[in-house]
Amino acid sequence: MINKLVEKIKKTNAPIVVGLDPMLNYIPEHIQKAAFAEYGETLEGAAEAMWQFNKGIVDATCDLIPAVKPQIAMYEQFGIEGLKVFKKTVDYCKSKGLIVIGDIKRGDIGSTSAAYAVGHLGSVQVGSKSYLPFDEDFATVNPYLGSDGVKPFAEVCKEHKKGLFILVKTSNPSSGEFQDQLVDGRPLYELVGEKVAQWGEELMGDEYSYIGAVVGATYPEMGKVLRKVMPKSFILVPGYGAQGGKGADLVHFFDENGLGAIVNSSRGIIAAYKQEKYASFGAENYADASRQAVLDMVADINGALENRE
Amino acid sequence: MINKLVEKIKKTNAPIVVGLDPMLNYIPEHIQKAAFAEYGETLEGAAEAMWQFNKGIVDATCDLIPAVKPQIAMYEQFGIEGLKVFKKTVDYCKSKGLIVIGDIKRGDIGSTSAAYAVGHLGSVQVGSKSYLPFDEDFATVNPYLGSDGVKPFAEVCKEHKKGLFILVKTSNPSSGEFQDQLVDGRPLYELVGEKVAQWGEELMGDEYSYIGAVVGATYPEMGKVLRKVMPKSFILVPGYGAQGGKGADLVHFFDENGLGAIVNSSRGIIAAYKQEKYASFGAENYADASRQAVLDMVADINGALENRE
Repeated sequence: MINKLVEKIKKTNAPIVVGLDPMLNYIPEHIQKAAFAEYGETLEGAAEAMWQFNKGIVDATCDLIPAVKPQIAMYEQFGIEGLKVFKKTVDYCKSKGLIVIGDIKRGDIGSTSAAYAVGHLGSVQVGSKSYLPFDEDFATVNPYLGSDGVKPFAEVCKEHKKGLFILVKTSNPSSGEFQDQLVDGRPLYELVGEKVAQWGEELMGDEYSYIGAVVGATYPEMGKVLRKVMPKSFILVPGYGAQGGKGADLVHFFDENGLGAIVNSSRGIIAAYKQEKYASFGAENYADASRQAVLDMVADINGALENRE
Repeated sequence: MINKLVEKIKKTNAPIVVGLDPMLNYIPEHIQKAAFAEYGETLEGAAEAMWQFNKGIVDATCDLIPAVKPQIAMYEQFGIEGLKVFKKTVDYCKSKGLIVIGDIKRGDIGSTSAAYAVGHLGSVQVGSKSYLPFDEDFATVNPYLGSDGVKPFAEVCKEHKKGLFILVKTSNPSSGEFQDQLVDGRPLYELVGEKVAQWGEELMGDEYSYIGAVVGATYPEMGKVLRKVMPKSFILVPGYGAQGGKGADLVHFFDENGLGAIVNSSRGIIAAYKQEKYASFGAENYADASRQAVLDMVADINGALENRE
């Protein structure tokens, strides 16, 4: 799947991923109204609104981008109905040729990690039959529990040719509370980065490993270091746009080939119509605003990559 | 909810929690057969088998125990059908007066953490209505992202009188890879423990905080230290039984009142009928074997508490 991701990035010339994190207050009123008219102000109604909103954005951007990253929390907050739409979104995006990174940040140990892995990336056995429950292409994983937590995921990735992005340095302001603590003079995130490189060595695709890392756009200097610590790991970079990261900050996450990183934007793309810059599209044409925001983001990042020293 | 947990522990005189982690190979053949006869070898069939299995164990043990801890991964691996049974299990246990600790190990930042929190512990707004999607009483949370990840959960706990158990030192062999790294001469888990104590100070129940910690039974010496670092935090202790922890190892997790800790056993209780010790019950009477295993576990732990110096 990492080979397919690289191929799609080359083909679209867009090292970006659109975060499908549909908070209800991002969803235009006309979509909410239609969904509530059909299902009432229920969990099902909220889920239907998310689905219609997602579908509009996917249809308007799928020719421009290699991948999407649905954040499962935004669906899980509406319970079972929300999770049904998570699954529907995964399936729809794949039918449009997009690679799906499930932003699930799961992490446990042994058979429990294995259960998450088969549920999201692999197949589960029921008697003589097997099923693909969620079937994302990649998943994000939390490393706090160590190798015991990551290896069951890695095994499923090997079998099903799927991939992981392990949290190394997250984009939030307080990420340093634990991640930046110095261990023998080096921050913890570097140690985690080294482990990611090590786990990844055993699971190589053509150019990059099946096992990548998450490093926040808001910490470009750390990105520079981590790029070297994990030379074969793709870096998923959240925090662009709404969280403050800019194209020029991102060049160090990429390698000399201009590859090796994929930058996520969620709110900045899916709620673009709410920004002054794209307000002229209007809420009815929110998906066109998202398309324009994708084009602008790709131009920003590719421009920065061309101009780097 | 922490007050209710303390009260239930005193009433049952059982500082234990039963982990409802129904792997298919724990479920007796007669239950699987009946479920597959009704729904086929499908995800729905697997989910039905889990449900019937859980129901049997809950019915056979609910008068003896204060709480259960369903591990969501075991349900999530069967997709939507599995998650429906997770919810059904939560509701059923609550109807039996049990406190439900959702072992979900979620953790993200800002609005995403808030989404998990409302989904699992709080209520979500849909237009003018609000809903309680999963409605567990406690949830486990991963601290790797720092305060930004924990605070949205804490806010929901405050509003809905729910609680958290934050991963501090996990029970698995490789937990030390990151958690034991020395920061200024002290292991990272101590720093995390200090943060748990600090987060918890702002959210106190009568005797203990709404914010507790997870510390593995397999590391009793660390439990001793962490008990002092977090004097007001309840400690959820996994790793008893199948993972190697024994009653005598656990006394240091408790405070001088014999409270402050709750010990989890999953496989050791729910698959007790598979152990030689309980084999005479037979698979048909698996729930009676679980009941006996609960009685034995309570006697082991209370005995150790009585005999401690």
